[in-house]
Amino acid sequence: VSAPAATTVRVAACQLSLSIGDVEGNRRQASAAVEDAAAAGARLVVLPELTPSGYVFTDETEARSLAEPLDGETVREWSELAGRHDVVVVGGICELGPEGELRNSAVLVDASGLRATYRKTHLWDRESDVFVPGGDQPPVVDTAAGRVGLLVCYDLEFPEWVRRPAVAGAEVIAAPTNWPTESRPAGERPMEVVRVQAGAAVNRVYVVAADRCGRERGVDWVGGSVIVGPDGYPLAGPAAADTPQLLVADIDLRAARSKVVGTRNDVFADRRPDLYT
Amino acid sequence: VSAPAATTVRVAACQLSLSIGDVEGNRRQASAAVEDAAAAGARLVVLPELTPSGYVFTDETEARSLAEPLDGETVREWSELAGRHDVVVVGGICELGPEGELRNSAVLVDASGLRATYRKTHLWDRESDVFVPGGDQPPVVDTAAGRVGLLVCYDLEFPEWVRRPAVAGAEVIAAPTNWPTESRPAGERPMEVVRVQAGAAVNRVYVVAADRCGRERGVDWVGGSVIVGPDGYPLAGPAAADTPQLLVADIDLRAARSKVVGTRNDVFADRRPDLYT
Repeated sequence: VSAPAATTVRVAACQLSLSIGDVEGNRRQASAAVEDAAAAGARLVVLPELTPSGYVFTDETEARSLAEPLDGETVREWSELAGRHDVVVVGGICELGPEGELRNSAVLVDASGLRATYRKTHLWDRESDVFVPGGDQPPVVDTAAGRVGLLVCYDLEFPEWVRRPAVAGAEVIAAPTNWPTESRPAGERPMEVVRVQAGAAVNRVYVVAADRCGRERGVDWVGGSVIVGPDGYPLAGPAAADTPQLLVADIDLRAARSKVVGTRNDVFADRRPDLYT
Repeated sequence: VSAPAATTVRVAACQLSLSIGDVEGNRRQASAAVEDAAAAGARLVVLPELTPSGYVFTDETEARSLAEPLDGETVREWSELAGRHDVVVVGGICELGPEGELRNSAVLVDASGLRATYRKTHLWDRESDVFVPGGDQPPVVDTAAGRVGLLVCYDLEFPEWVRRPAVAGAEVIAAPTNWPTESRPAGERPMEVVRVQAGAAVNRVYVVAADRCGRERGVDWVGGSVIVGPDGYPLAGPAAADTPQLLVADIDLRAARSKVVGTRNDVFADRRPDLYT
């Protein structure tokens, strides 16, 4: 049983080094990360995309062999952890959907169990060989750690989509990611982080993005997990080292409830949706 | 008479220190900056928002006294410069509109004269006491320096709006700005620059933003003029010193014509506009 939402909460992004196909090992690593985050005082803990399964599937058959339903072992285990430590857990799973289809999903669980599921809408690269894209709006869930919206990885590159949970009242966007590394100029932040910063700033919301690190079947991950404030500046991270990391930050949810900027403006009221199509 | 558009062009952002009310001095400074940019080989030259008038008007009456129509002296002078140096000039003026209303406008001129006008749609702070907001889509103009879209300052904080000229085929977004300074953490780029970077990256377009520097009636300007590539990384700037600057970069327009990312994705084709409202 969770206490009513405080206005200041500690949130965590857990950057993990996962292994494709090692579901038990990946679950153990995720559970340990949630316990570390809870011990550090976090009330919202975000894990990477496709945490139990890993990411770089050979084909749909392999992905299917690593998939699990929403009432499967991972949601059960994260719910149990959430209850034991009074935390909200967000993480990505390879979901075996109700029609037998595969989904790249983020789940939000708390002590009461599964609260919301989001199926990734914008699929990256070979994901479209494996997953059915989502077609529903991102959920926004009232939790003991604030109003939390869900997005997954490549979704963050579509500012119209980042807008949806924010306009629906999210104070925090929790985003499990697996950001593959691309080259960038020396001294520059990964563009994935820059886009998260801008997405937070234009919507005046917090964003907690948990990425992977390490290497999997030839793919390197950015490992740029980050917690960003409504002004767009990082509160923790971006993680710089290509190693597992626990990022934590204390956030004031009230800062995400007001959309006022300067003395006369409001980033939501100033929109002109009649002109945007 | 301009040559057909090459695929590689040099573009310039001119950061100026203007003085409210000193229309002649501001015009002289702008003309000198265009000549310097042309001498440096630039074919597209971007000047700040409200270049001839300055920005921090006391009231509507003062703004009106500094306004000029689209067939006024500034457009005439920039057209003449454009013809003499074979450049495209984009800059902001305080426009006396056809119905006597005031507009915060960007104009695009070349050797043939005025090619396009854009009236700022999202008004910042006390601008709404002075200006009538625009209600038309941002123009996209075929020029000898590529297909150029126009936006002004606070418009850049609305990603749906940055999307419009990009989807309409702009290869370069030219953005006159007057970015007032806000505090930021040490070592961080101004959020205005971060938003420009993200806007360029999610649309795979170039953005040339020309800001002011110095101080006017108690307002400090960011002075963070920047030229950003379709990957979101700066090609020139952001200007770091609070002084007039000429930024130039060579851009390959072809890089903004393809929206492909990775091996299987396209940032425009991957959009789901049916879900964005």
